[in-house]
Amino acid sequence: MGIEDAHDVGAEPGARFRAMTLNQIGEFGLLERIRRMVPARSVNIPGGIGDDAAVLRIPPRRQLIVTTDMLVEAVDFDPAYGSFRQIGYKALAANLSDVAAMGGRPFAFLVGLAVPGRTPVRAVDEIYGGMLSLARRHRVALIGGDISASPTGMLIAVTVLGEVEPGRAVLRSGARAGDRIYVTGSLGDSRAGLEILTKRKKRKKLKSTAVESDLIRRHFFPAPRVVFGRLLGRRGWATAMIDLSDGLASDLRHLCEAGRVGARLESDRLPVSASLAAYAGRLGRPAKDYALRGGEDFELLFTVRGKNAAAVEAAAKRMGLPVTPIGAIVSKHRGITVAGMGGRVAPLTLRGYEHFRRP
Amino acid sequence: MGIEDAHDVGAEPGARFRAMTLNQIGEFGLLERIRRMVPARSVNIPGGIGDDAAVLRIPPRRQLIVTTDMLVEAVDFDPAYGSFRQIGYKALAANLSDVAAMGGRPFAFLVGLAVPGRTPVRAVDEIYGGMLSLARRHRVALIGGDISASPTGMLIAVTVLGEVEPGRAVLRSGARAGDRIYVTGSLGDSRAGLEILTKRKKRKKLKSTAVESDLIRRHFFPAPRVVFGRLLGRRGWATAMIDLSDGLASDLRHLCEAGRVGARLESDRLPVSASLAAYAGRLGRPAKDYALRGGEDFELLFTVRGKNAAAVEAAAKRMGLPVTPIGAIVSKHRGITVAGMGGRVAPLTLRGYEHFRRP
Repeated sequence: MGIEDAHDVGAEPGARFRAMTLNQIGEFGLLERIRRMVPARSVNIPGGIGDDAAVLRIPPRRQLIVTTDMLVEAVDFDPAYGSFRQIGYKALAANLSDVAAMGGRPFAFLVGLAVPGRTPVRAVDEIYGGMLSLARRHRVALIGGDISASPTGMLIAVTVLGEVEPGRAVLRSGARAGDRIYVTGSLGDSRAGLEILTKRKKRKKLKSTAVESDLIRRHFFPAPRVVFGRLLGRRGWATAMIDLSDGLASDLRHLCEAGRVGARLESDRLPVSASLAAYAGRLGRPAKDYALRGGEDFELLFTVRGKNAAAVEAAAKRMGLPVTPIGAIVSKHRGITVAGMGGRVAPLTLRGYEHFRRP
Repeated sequence: MGIEDAHDVGAEPGARFRAMTLNQIGEFGLLERIRRMVPARSVNIPGGIGDDAAVLRIPPRRQLIVTTDMLVEAVDFDPAYGSFRQIGYKALAANLSDVAAMGGRPFAFLVGLAVPGRTPVRAVDEIYGGMLSLARRHRVALIGGDISASPTGMLIAVTVLGEVEPGRAVLRSGARAGDRIYVTGSLGDSRAGLEILTKRKKRKKLKSTAVESDLIRRHFFPAPRVVFGRLLGRRGWATAMIDLSDGLASDLRHLCEAGRVGARLESDRLPVSASLAAYAGRLGRPAKDYALRGGEDFELLFTVRGKNAAAVEAAAKRMGLPVTPIGAIVSKHRGITVAGMGGRVAPLTLRGYEHFRRP
């Protein structure tokens, strides 16, 4: 079953399983089950899964990239909204996206999973199924992890390892005044998808229009831009890069702060999908608001010297991935501004998601 | 302040802080705070902390070791029992112990922390303080992580990276019939310490005897055997190794299953501290029971060919670390037995801790 086939929006997955729970099979039973889901031992993993730690061969002449990300029930996901497969998929996707944003190639991952003992075994199967399906697509091997009982909600902590040629990692800090600012794909879809899910939960509405389904799918199954990020790193085209997890407004700010630069966005250029345009239009709200604030798009935001812009656009075109120039890096004292919102240039004050802060 | 100084047994740490909470400083304020606690950028970390992912130089001609472990509030720890410093210390110690059990040298770690927004900032400071103090002692660098709000309890997920010479990682599976079985340190102290804490909570008793304080300290601040584990790996002396996290009975079973062998333990040989002997004696219970079942000692259990036994014992003596031969590996069909419990040889049926199973 492919990831997309598992897309059971709106169903309550817990209700589908009345069968075996984790309390019945125990930690070691569960570990054995997961081990059977993982393809036979990779040539790069001498120890295989199940020792105190994983042992890996490292490609020669490479630097290592490591990132870790947590998804917390009721904060980052709600099992009542989507499928467990989707939760597993997204936990890995967020981490692959981080490696992509460094220009690296992800090759291995570890999973920490905390779950209540009453959780059905099949829910855990689906979480790993969602992760392993995405992992296969990107040739990333599950090499280890930890499973723990949790007194209340579920938490997934994924750590991804990647590799990059020495000196080729694309940091957040490399942008210089005059660089062009690009994003991959389209922005704001994931936030709109989440909004639809939240409204639906309140109104107990279960049917979606095609537009709504598309936006929900973007929220549940973001595509980490691994191949394109890798290309930008290997070619040395991106001077700075970050993935869009908190939202464009917030992540552009991170990039500018790291590089001690300012930025000027052209709001008319922000790439918006047809689905988002239709959805926002129906609500009478500007789609650009979703594009600026929306978190969890997992698109890449990167900067490029003018001389490399044509090469970047041509390479993206060959890969069939839309990339859009959305503005330019300026010197720090000019700040971060947005042109075109109501016909004028305004400071960018919108903020994206931040843990512990109420918007 | 050293780790040991922070040992505020019995106090309720939450009560000490009425000050700033995470909701007040926000995620980015907290990240900035943690960044200031971390020593200046290491030569092996070109990117430093705070990018999408960490970038590391790998020592040439080495294999990589990776392990991840979670501590969950109300399952693995209870902030009402000890200090937040202790919780941070132990979260890292458990992972360093896993690398030690592979014969590797740990060099870097990442921290995933999920905490409720009402948590005092100083509690998080103390958690990182406990980790960083142990990290300095073992020259392990904090290179990244993730922080998330949690709706209820706290969860710490630590990932540690280590290195080992190619082919020198000590797996669980290498034991052969005739090998001697050794453990470092003494066994069962941590479990006795936990028992004391649990009883104290019920009775609201706050004062400890010297014996009790010693056992509680062993529960809160286990010493990962990093230097000795590394020596066993580098010299190729250990044929198999595992760290004692679930308890000797359980972890010896893991080692035997991985190596398809049996084992015969001499129960009179199990190393028991003077404190545990005194504590168990007062309760009229055999100290060996604590040694066999007790989890979280984080000592090393390893097997050695007879010809290397003298070298191992001499090396341990030079380091001032007690190692004790506790039995021998036998062929699989003879099973796992304990000699000396009540004067006879009996199958080992005691089990250690397993998540999701009620003991």
